[in-house]
Amino acid sequence: MSQSDITIARLAEIGQDNAEYLISRIRSVRGFPKEGINFRDFMPVLADPKALGLMLDALEAALPVPADSFDAIAGLEARGFLFGPALAARLGKGFIAVRKAGKLPPETIGESYDLEYGTASIEIEANMVQPGERVLIVDDLIATGGTAKAAADLIRRAGGEVAGFSFVMELVGLNGLEPLGDVPSSTLVTMPA
Amino acid sequence: MSQSDITIARLAEIGQDNAEYLISRIRSVRGFPKEGINFRDFMPVLADPKALGLMLDALEAALPVPADSFDAIAGLEARGFLFGPALAARLGKGFIAVRKAGKLPPETIGESYDLEYGTASIEIEANMVQPGERVLIVDDLIATGGTAKAAADLIRRAGGEVAGFSFVMELVGLNGLEPLGDVPSSTLVTMPA
Repeated sequence: MSQSDITIARLAEIGQDNAEYLISRIRSVRGFPKEGINFRDFMPVLADPKALGLMLDALEAALPVPADSFDAIAGLEARGFLFGPALAARLGKGFIAVRKAGKLPPETIGESYDLEYGTASIEIEANMVQPGERVLIVDDLIATGGTAKAAADLIRRAGGEVAGFSFVMELVGLNGLEPLGDVPSSTLVTMPA
Repeated sequence: MSQSDITIARLAEIGQDNAEYLISRIRSVRGFPKEGINFRDFMPVLADPKALGLMLDALEAALPVPADSFDAIAGLEARGFLFGPALAARLGKGFIAVRKAGKLPPETIGESYDLEYGTASIEIEANMVQPGERVLIVDDLIATGGTAKAAADLIRRAGGEVAGFSFVMELVGLNGLEPLGDVPSSTLVTMPA
């Protein structure tokens, strides 16, 4: 099986059969977006009704903190948009869209962070985060943690608190959780970078 | 009330109170992204738990065709991602991501279309659409209909059938539904361009 390098991080919450089904729908594409990268594609998870439901169930079951300890979910453009609002709706929370710079109408609050080459900027709409609001940050993948860290800094700058991080996939060996400090996090499945 | 130019297109399905609540959360931003445009921002709908739930309920209640007459939902990057998968999960369907060119791993199927200045290209992953699969296309907004038409052409080129279109907002006066032919469509609320 081609997915034998993917490990279930949250077996107790997801269950063996469900986890194996979920993993079977993650597609590995070597050489994308560039040579040497083994791209982990979760679009086939979304395209499969059973896997989509399982993923949302698993994210809900494996929340890093209890659902009553956060008020809203923030998700990163574009893949975090694919399940963040669905998870928020299931939990009765609102969803805060973290977009690439220039996409949101004014006023916005921004945060820049370093990439391998150059920098990137992300934004949220001002007044989207209430003072002291507790926010769960979600994204499909955590690699080096740079983007997730920037999202956390952005939420805090807007006056909110970061209650936790929830990821579908984690690339191991990159210490991506380290920049996130002692905020609780959860990942469904892990795989080599 | 600043939203008095927004009209409920699907009053019977949504109900007066729910529709008014939904509309109250759509923010109008004049002069974005450029002079003369009155940008309709639905991010505050997503950020409000009640409005997010109402929007998903309304989209489900106002489907352009019965849920058993389509197999999957396709949504357009990035704002179609914000509710397409949530709607798909509620209906037990899969979700097909239509992305801007270059974002998806190979193999892909693409479609180009004209913009006011220049052209744009959208893609789906190959093999995402099964032969004869019936697809509902969703997006947040229909204006001239160019993007929705391109998405429909893409689904058909991939071997699928377009069962319908579902939009949250429609800018009236631009004849955006005209390019979509006789495929059923539904819109929750309408507003001047």
